[in-house]
Amino acid sequence: MTNSTTYSVTVNGVTRELPSIQVGEMGRVPLVELLGDFEFTNAVADALVPLLPENAQVLLSVSTSSIPLAHAVSERKKLPYVIVRKKRRTYMRQPLIQEVPSMTLGVNETLWLDSRHATRLKGQQVVILTDVVVSGGTQEALAKLVERAGGTVCGYVSGFKQGDPRVAVQYLVELPKVL
Amino acid sequence: MTNSTTYSVTVNGVTRELPSIQVGEMGRVPLVELLGDFEFTNAVADALVPLLPENAQVLLSVSTSSIPLAHAVSERKKLPYVIVRKKRRTYMRQPLIQEVPSMTLGVNETLWLDSRHATRLKGQQVVILTDVVVSGGTQEALAKLVERAGGTVCGYVSGFKQGDPRVAVQYLVELPKVL
Repeated sequence: MTNSTTYSVTVNGVTRELPSIQVGEMGRVPLVELLGDFEFTNAVADALVPLLPENAQVLLSVSTSSIPLAHAVSERKKLPYVIVRKKRRTYMRQPLIQEVPSMTLGVNETLWLDSRHATRLKGQQVVILTDVVVSGGTQEALAKLVERAGGTVCGYVSGFKQGDPRVAVQYLVELPKVL
Repeated sequence: MTNSTTYSVTVNGVTRELPSIQVGEMGRVPLVELLGDFEFTNAVADALVPLLPENAQVLLSVSTSSIPLAHAVSERKKLPYVIVRKKRRTYMRQPLIQEVPSMTLGVNETLWLDSRHATRLKGQQVVILTDVVVSGGTQEALAKLVERAGGTVCGYVSGFKQGDPRVAVQYLVELPKVL
């Protein structure tokens, strides 16, 4: 491992030294990793629950890194959650398809929402939940999917903010964009 | 939604009507969906915990559908977990790369294990944990990654068995391969 710089964050009493990674030509950025860390995931979920809009009925998130957080917030609020996929699966029928520009991969990504799950958003107040918000591009694409599915976005919530997103997101910790 | 056939399963008192899906020319098969269902995920996790080998030190699973289950089992056993990815991420450094044949997609898939996470398996007794085992191909590929990372596989655990896997897997519920 060549990364020597870390960035310390504490959420609800749980501290992690985030590794820093080289992303394109942006320089070194701290990397949030909830995947593989139930203790940190649960701390972030506990802290996010009070930020959810009162009228939220469904949580919408996207694979992959936000999945444990979506599970943990769903469990705490006893609200259903839906995960949008980044790959078409053969079992999907008439999926909603939405393009999103990705900062991490440096190329456009495609979001896939199976029609069976789109129906779970219809007529519902939906919170868009992610581990990290950067440009807001992913959140905007998720919002478009909510509208197309017949739901209403009632808020955006994210554990971490790393940049200046184009949407108004409730978050816990602001991370530097470059270390 | 054109699926009319469902298959009922009960785990630890939680019952779900699994939708059936058309998979290639195999016919209709029941689809397990833990993603988006914290209650069923937790029921499966509760039931799986007693099946874990006593000497387990780390859980290894693979994205995407098994992630909530890995989180929930990890949380209950207070054991760390590692998720192998199906897509290379730009932050990966010297990842271990492993091919696996996929029944679901009908094409080979590639598994990616970042070197930072591979080190978490080194010298450890590792349980391979999945939501569903079918042919055992994914489990074999995960086992190869454990060996290459310097760990030892101490067992295979899966919520559901759907077919005749080539590896000995502890599971909770056997599902019909075709309805």
